[in-house]
Amino acid sequence: MAMIKTPVKGMPEQLPADMEIREYALNLIKETYGRFGFNLIETPVIEHIENLTNKQGGENESLIFKILKRGEKLKESEGNDELCDSGLRYDLTVPLSRFFVNNMNILPYPFKAMQLGSSFRADKPQKGRFRQFTQCDIDIIGDGSNLAEIELISATAEMLHRLGMGNFKIRINDRRILRAMATACSFPQERFDEICIVLDKLDKIGVDGIAELLRKMDLPEEGIVRYCAMLADGTDYEQCAAFVGKHIAEALEPAIGANMDTIISCVRAIVQGRGTIVFDPSLVRGMGYYTGPIFEIELVDKSNYSFSIAGGGRYDEMIGKFSEGKINAPACGFSIGFERIVTILKDKGFKVERQCESVAYLLRPDLPSERVREVIVEVNTLRDEGKRVLISPKAKNIKAQIEKLEEYGYTRIVKIDN
Amino acid sequence: MAMIKTPVKGMPEQLPADMEIREYALNLIKETYGRFGFNLIETPVIEHIENLTNKQGGENESLIFKILKRGEKLKESEGNDELCDSGLRYDLTVPLSRFFVNNMNILPYPFKAMQLGSSFRADKPQKGRFRQFTQCDIDIIGDGSNLAEIELISATAEMLHRLGMGNFKIRINDRRILRAMATACSFPQERFDEICIVLDKLDKIGVDGIAELLRKMDLPEEGIVRYCAMLADGTDYEQCAAFVGKHIAEALEPAIGANMDTIISCVRAIVQGRGTIVFDPSLVRGMGYYTGPIFEIELVDKSNYSFSIAGGGRYDEMIGKFSEGKINAPACGFSIGFERIVTILKDKGFKVERQCESVAYLLRPDLPSERVREVIVEVNTLRDEGKRVLISPKAKNIKAQIEKLEEYGYTRIVKIDN
Repeated sequence: MAMIKTPVKGMPEQLPADMEIREYALNLIKETYGRFGFNLIETPVIEHIENLTNKQGGENESLIFKILKRGEKLKESEGNDELCDSGLRYDLTVPLSRFFVNNMNILPYPFKAMQLGSSFRADKPQKGRFRQFTQCDIDIIGDGSNLAEIELISATAEMLHRLGMGNFKIRINDRRILRAMATACSFPQERFDEICIVLDKLDKIGVDGIAELLRKMDLPEEGIVRYCAMLADGTDYEQCAAFVGKHIAEALEPAIGANMDTIISCVRAIVQGRGTIVFDPSLVRGMGYYTGPIFEIELVDKSNYSFSIAGGGRYDEMIGKFSEGKINAPACGFSIGFERIVTILKDKGFKVERQCESVAYLLRPDLPSERVREVIVEVNTLRDEGKRVLISPKAKNIKAQIEKLEEYGYTRIVKIDN
Repeated sequence: MAMIKTPVKGMPEQLPADMEIREYALNLIKETYGRFGFNLIETPVIEHIENLTNKQGGENESLIFKILKRGEKLKESEGNDELCDSGLRYDLTVPLSRFFVNNMNILPYPFKAMQLGSSFRADKPQKGRFRQFTQCDIDIIGDGSNLAEIELISATAEMLHRLGMGNFKIRINDRRILRAMATACSFPQERFDEICIVLDKLDKIGVDGIAELLRKMDLPEEGIVRYCAMLADGTDYEQCAAFVGKHIAEALEPAIGANMDTIISCVRAIVQGRGTIVFDPSLVRGMGYYTGPIFEIELVDKSNYSFSIAGGGRYDEMIGKFSEGKINAPACGFSIGFERIVTILKDKGFKVERQCESVAYLLRPDLPSERVREVIVEVNTLRDEGKRVLISPKAKNIKAQIEKLEEYGYTRIVKIDN
């Protein structure tokens, strides 16, 4: 078999210049989240197939890279479904929940986790969208109060600010408000997930498109009219009380709306001048595991990056699923799309400043070994002083070699010819 | 299906305290290798199955985690072998070679690469040995001179020194010297790989054991006697000239021995006082892709870590395999076992010093939302000053909560009761 020089379809490669930006951003993210008391952990990229295919991940479950069993276990297997015992994780939330249940005796409670790692989805590759991608997640497990949401959103907003991402808009909703909206319209409980999938298309198809799709689902016409009236009323509210009072007061427990508005007012006090926060009753979020508040951040920069850059929410039931219901720890998390942040920094022409002098020694080939030894010792003295020093044989095309070295930040060239 | 709380067999989890040590070590490694002019890059963990099963990886090829095809492609496949189109990389060298050929038009030449990433081998898990593990590799592509070996070994030695790994011993050999040893004994060329596998057991079975295994291979008795005489003569040489002159002078091109001794004397000048370097004619290194000098570093610390902590060598033919022989770039690399370094740091009781003050705010549950907002704003002012500040609901068992926080480095606790 010939060896293949291109990467596997949809897989990313990072060149040195890209890595400088990535490292800069990752370090700043770690430092910022560290100030908020989040603890860095790491979970494996390989996860039990049972944990990945348990209807927690929504449509991501159809995009799993599955890993073949090995040795005897493979021989014993029959039929495609049993050929695999594990797969690559599609997010960092499922592995975190497993990790927490497995280690809870030695972890603080509540536990504030930070993860920076690769996830994998066999999605259709697009520009800037890869099948292996870095996620930066923060999660708080064990805090059922809205302090968790407030902290997660504040930390992420602060991080975006420090990364120079410009003005941003936070959208927040609650899965229970979405449920109440459906209930108020007399839609059947068991069709809730389907309704959410439709609602998620509002951006693209508008209120009329939503009405059409709901009609195709054979839902009661009166309910559809009411549902669409809620949406036609707008999707950006200063507080959720106005929306709830007008549309779903009878279907929603008042504490849920009050909780939402506390989060909104606390976050607003923090992000003032940098971004805004609105209640958006049309915000859905795809993951099946969310149970309460859900939120997204989009950039509203003049350079037209008006897409979601971070998303998260509360998933109070997942920990229980890993412990047969024995441990019922509330949990809430926020995940940023790291690849998008890097794309924006690159598009802005962001450059990482080098802190030290860079020197390149270019040696004539076939210098006597005693002379090589002398130069090596000299070079290492400079390195001990903290300088970056490259040592390399002189190329035939020395002009091209020096140009490339200058491109890589070498400001002093030392030629050793004898 | 129930969800499973333990990690997949052999997969590692990193707790916060472990991560602090890992981050410290990774940053120091990046900084040190950066001084030597190595450029950080990243390659995907998923690689073409063709690239992983091309006899480059020695026995690692039997330990590959293979990834099932998806969708239509899976349906079309018949028989086990064709079920997979990709797999998880078993090292960072094969992906680097592919990366280089794919990007060589925009990379400097010679190219100095640094990679810190996960590799995967479905090995039998042991204490401190995982199926997903971090490798730290440096490689120089395009430098056929011994400057490459000298730089790689010097950089790795400097890095081990800065990590406080204590005294170390570098062993070096050359695949061509191993070949000359076999030739001098009239062993057939085509059995060279088998002979290397036997020689690699010298540590465990001694010279007599080697003789026995060679006899089982039906090699000429006279050759076996001569081969074992070479080994019985010792394995630690100041320079290789002594060994070559006595045993294999007629079978080895003189430049190969001279090259080895230049590397040895240059490295010795650099590592003086920190470690030693010896020529070891019994050093084999398992990978099939090595073509020239090969080397390992072991620690000779008083705390008894006498195992290999880093290994590498020259692989001049691999780049050609990715370009159908069109590009024949020489290449040389050195890889450290990061997990072993972390184990040693942990065993030594190494602690990372925290640079900033850590404060924990513990809030009475159900504080009025206006009060929560005030506290949040106060907390964020402290964070803006660079402090680490945690904010959390007060637990019922506040004594246990505070103890845990102190364990995590929080030196000031602020209780907010109203």
